[in-house]
Amino acid sequence: MLEKDGSVANEKGFTVPTGVSAFDAASWNGIAIDSTCGGYGTCKKCRIQVTTGDVEPSKLDYRAFSESEIKAGWRLACLVRAAKDVTLDVPPLTTRPKAATVGVGRQVILRPAVQKRYVELEEPTLHDQRTDIVRLFDAIDDIEATVSLAAIRNLPKVLRSSYFKVTAVFVDQELIDIEAGDTTDLRYGIAYDLGTTTVVATLLDLNTGTPVAVKSMLNKQQPFGADVITRISATMMDATALDRLRGFAQQTLAELSAEVCEEAGVDPLNVYEVALAGNATMTQLALGIDPEPLGVAPFIMVSASFPDVQASELGINVHPRAKAVIMPSLGAYVGGDIVAGALASGMDRDKRLRLFIDVGTNCEIILGDGDKILATAAPAGPAFEAASIKCGVRAASGAIETIKVVDGDLEIGTIENTKAIGLCGSGLVDACACLVQLGLLDHSGRFVTAEAAAIAAPKVAHRLVEREGERVFVLTWGGAEGDLNDCVFLTQRDVRELQFAKAAIATGWALLLEEFGVAESEVQQVLLAGSFGSYLSPASAVKIGLVPMLPVMRIVSAGNVAGEGAKMVLLSAQERNGAMALLDSIDYIELSDRSDFNDKFVERLSFPA
Amino acid sequence: MLEKDGSVANEKGFTVPTGVSAFDAASWNGIAIDSTCGGYGTCKKCRIQVTTGDVEPSKLDYRAFSESEIKAGWRLACLVRAAKDVTLDVPPLTTRPKAATVGVGRQVILRPAVQKRYVELEEPTLHDQRTDIVRLFDAIDDIEATVSLAAIRNLPKVLRSSYFKVTAVFVDQELIDIEAGDTTDLRYGIAYDLGTTTVVATLLDLNTGTPVAVKSMLNKQQPFGADVITRISATMMDATALDRLRGFAQQTLAELSAEVCEEAGVDPLNVYEVALAGNATMTQLALGIDPEPLGVAPFIMVSASFPDVQASELGINVHPRAKAVIMPSLGAYVGGDIVAGALASGMDRDKRLRLFIDVGTNCEIILGDGDKILATAAPAGPAFEAASIKCGVRAASGAIETIKVVDGDLEIGTIENTKAIGLCGSGLVDACACLVQLGLLDHSGRFVTAEAAAIAAPKVAHRLVEREGERVFVLTWGGAEGDLNDCVFLTQRDVRELQFAKAAIATGWALLLEEFGVAESEVQQVLLAGSFGSYLSPASAVKIGLVPMLPVMRIVSAGNVAGEGAKMVLLSAQERNGAMALLDSIDYIELSDRSDFNDKFVERLSFPA
Repeated sequence: MLEKDGSVANEKGFTVPTGVSAFDAASWNGIAIDSTCGGYGTCKKCRIQVTTGDVEPSKLDYRAFSESEIKAGWRLACLVRAAKDVTLDVPPLTTRPKAATVGVGRQVILRPAVQKRYVELEEPTLHDQRTDIVRLFDAIDDIEATVSLAAIRNLPKVLRSSYFKVTAVFVDQELIDIEAGDTTDLRYGIAYDLGTTTVVATLLDLNTGTPVAVKSMLNKQQPFGADVITRISATMMDATALDRLRGFAQQTLAELSAEVCEEAGVDPLNVYEVALAGNATMTQLALGIDPEPLGVAPFIMVSASFPDVQASELGINVHPRAKAVIMPSLGAYVGGDIVAGALASGMDRDKRLRLFIDVGTNCEIILGDGDKILATAAPAGPAFEAASIKCGVRAASGAIETIKVVDGDLEIGTIENTKAIGLCGSGLVDACACLVQLGLLDHSGRFVTAEAAAIAAPKVAHRLVEREGERVFVLTWGGAEGDLNDCVFLTQRDVRELQFAKAAIATGWALLLEEFGVAESEVQQVLLAGSFGSYLSPASAVKIGLVPMLPVMRIVSAGNVAGEGAKMVLLSAQERNGAMALLDSIDYIELSDRSDFNDKFVERLSFPA
Repeated sequence: MLEKDGSVANEKGFTVPTGVSAFDAASWNGIAIDSTCGGYGTCKKCRIQVTTGDVEPSKLDYRAFSESEIKAGWRLACLVRAAKDVTLDVPPLTTRPKAATVGVGRQVILRPAVQKRYVELEEPTLHDQRTDIVRLFDAIDDIEATVSLAAIRNLPKVLRSSYFKVTAVFVDQELIDIEAGDTTDLRYGIAYDLGTTTVVATLLDLNTGTPVAVKSMLNKQQPFGADVITRISATMMDATALDRLRGFAQQTLAELSAEVCEEAGVDPLNVYEVALAGNATMTQLALGIDPEPLGVAPFIMVSASFPDVQASELGINVHPRAKAVIMPSLGAYVGGDIVAGALASGMDRDKRLRLFIDVGTNCEIILGDGDKILATAAPAGPAFEAASIKCGVRAASGAIETIKVVDGDLEIGTIENTKAIGLCGSGLVDACACLVQLGLLDHSGRFVTAEAAAIAAPKVAHRLVEREGERVFVLTWGGAEGDLNDCVFLTQRDVRELQFAKAAIATGWALLLEEFGVAESEVQQVLLAGSFGSYLSPASAVKIGLVPMLPVMRIVSAGNVAGEGAKMVLLSAQERNGAMALLDSIDYIELSDRSDFNDKFVERLSFPA
């Protein structure tokens, strides 16, 4: 593709998936093309010239260009979908497309599936007996519309009560409502991150691309168990559990929706699309689909994607015909939350070799360079949630969350800087990393002898004590130094728990690297995703071998990428299609039937030298 | 197209609409092509050879033919959709496609949109983790399936409880259910003729194409008025009327559905598609759409068609995801019943110049020769229902329904041969026709003088008497001859009523003939449709000028073609598409704004010479 900006011709070549428009291909690759409508063929500003190769003109091209311009190769970039190599000449930019920054530095061009068109129609006469719907669609020439019965039931009344001045509301091609007068400034969507523990809702203004309210709450399914397996088990024990779990998920979503709308002063009827990112179990439960085959071998999903769901089927009280985008899942344990995360992290576009790790009870791992993408799931167990750790607590006030080695001593930080009450996941990782660094844990994960400790780390060796018959390392004393009542400590068993968890993850990415045919050192970026990933110290992650041995600069926290991915699909139908395309572009690698899994796992149990 | 049957090559050429397969084009034109699946690419029997012209092979062609056969032009006829002229060579027939005779001698090739596929699937393993839906669809290679959430909610349970032996139920491409075991022999549909007065339901076995039960009842909307205008008025007076009218229509449909299923011993859950033929007002009311703009000038429909309606939206309790085909309407007064009638009468295929007349309060007229088709509506008023006739009664026991001239005298027949109690519509037409024939009515429609009557028709002249100050013609005496108590008679005003009604209709077809550029005598067939059309004497219709002056043989009763059309669309998706295509192929002519309407009307008031 040839970009002509001013006098200097700047040639760029790249390959895009079939069906991607030249307009999108250009913006993905940093070449801006004029547009005000965002790529719907309405503004007719995205003029480009095909200089070599053949691109059939579309119906709209004939409206935008003269016959001679068409012969000269002029086309609207948003309608050009090349199947073979073409060379395109892009005129200098005069305007900037609307865009929003979402996810891991992703620039998303605003083009929501939700569209509105305000029209003033001619009133019917005996000489113009077009049906109401044809009259409306004749005035909207850039959408090949479809329509459901429910959407047009009130059409006669709305047209006549508003003197034929109405706003048509579309989601993709489908007309979902006709509103009296001009309502084009009211266009919203809600993105949900449906976690097993926490559910987050973000209300987005689709006209500006900005979030206008965010709310979170605990998933009301909690009484059925903390993790997906206990919830699946519930449905196997009790025939009514599926309906109740579905009901609780839907109540959670409904309450959050009401809260974000209320906070932003937005009428729920102006929310026309929602997007849901959740793991496969949360997704099936919210949709009322029996999750049993997800929970038992061979771990089968009913479907990877759910293309045509209504928000009402999720119990969400927004516009009655609002659509729901359900993030597709790659496998029973690499769900829609991970696909959303991969989208938000640009795993399908970034040309660097990158490793995406969502750390949790079930850990999902993706390795890719934009062309080839591999994914797998690793059962890390509950260590990172500190559930099986002696002094483990949830990440709340008083939990030790950071530990650093400063001048041979430990600097310990708690959440909200209150008195330490226990150790949360990131604190556990830091603790082990520091003890390895100080030489108090050997590479096999054993506490060293008191003698060795005194030599290796004189300032902290006294914290390695005997308590109720086992050797423990005291992180904070109960009161004065030496007070073992209410002290927070690390046991040998705790260290083993962490080793098992990190070895499961490391085996996962090590096998993916092998499958990919690359070395650990070639990874250019490691993204730590999920809420746990955000708190994890990249340096500690390297020290314990949770991530490849790389310079710390290459290890970044990606934040709540699942929620970001859900936002992206609302802001851009093209990004939504990209999310669906990830199903084909990512290869899922099942680890549980690999003969070399156990060998690799044992190798990865120890801490790196 | 070249048909090769045995040794004799028989060349036929014809034009078909874009998108019609060679298989359908051939069967419409009397060339049989082998097929057992009915045109879905499954049986791979409909082999034809493209000898000139270019037809891209489809995905299924590659499964059906070798590379060299494809190069030689072999294709499956059901997948060939030519855009330009092609020559095809059709091998001799070895089997006969399933077909049913419906409508006016229409042979319908059985190809319901409702399809079932019984499959026995491999059970999943850790090495084969395909999702349930992919596993199912991989086993069905001839349908590019889509799926709704509701349809797959029970998929995991059904697959596992039936040991992965299931029957997939499709309507068109959409999977609507998965049933345990082999249920392919259970496949039903219900066709409704939703009349303003009477509603008829026919339960069809879609495997054989035969009706298995038929039931009718009065439309429960009757309390709101006998005709469409009074029902529309009700919705304008009372805000709750629309909901109530919708409810009554739906109750009528629901009760009939239950009755036909019970009579045939069919489980309503095995009814997967319904079809509804009704006028525009009945259709909009049943769908809950405000009919007001239909009832007042300029008479506007909300939409000509309703492409994606569920049977449940009509209140019909059959399969919860059964589809409903709503017959499209050409205009506010040429509704889905008439489009169904046009389909059943083959107005789009028969190459003869034919005139279709549905006689009633609102009379619909279609004129066409298969290539060009014109339609209009004529407000005939209530004369044919005998509502405004002095001795008029509904067509029930004791109504005079036939009158003939035999040897200069009248032969009068009543329904069920009981004592005459009045005159129904067909009796009124016969009465006027006989009196014109006998010379008792002159061509202007006036009773002749007693003197003229005595000369013209000595045997019946004495029936022309004075009664309560007006001259009437007595059809049947109350008791003995001359007894005017309880006699059934015809008044001068009755004759005028009929003249106005028949003139409205005759003006309609006369203007269509003019628009078409053909003379009355060129019409090769007149179809009298609707329940009234079935009872009308073709000879009398000619005599009073209700239909063109043609040999009586050319005038035929078409019967209840609306109901037949509804049946056809269930038996064949292709016929359904044909019904939708009628919207484009029929030109609606509005008569009310024609300047020459009144002149033509006055001309047509008199009886033909």
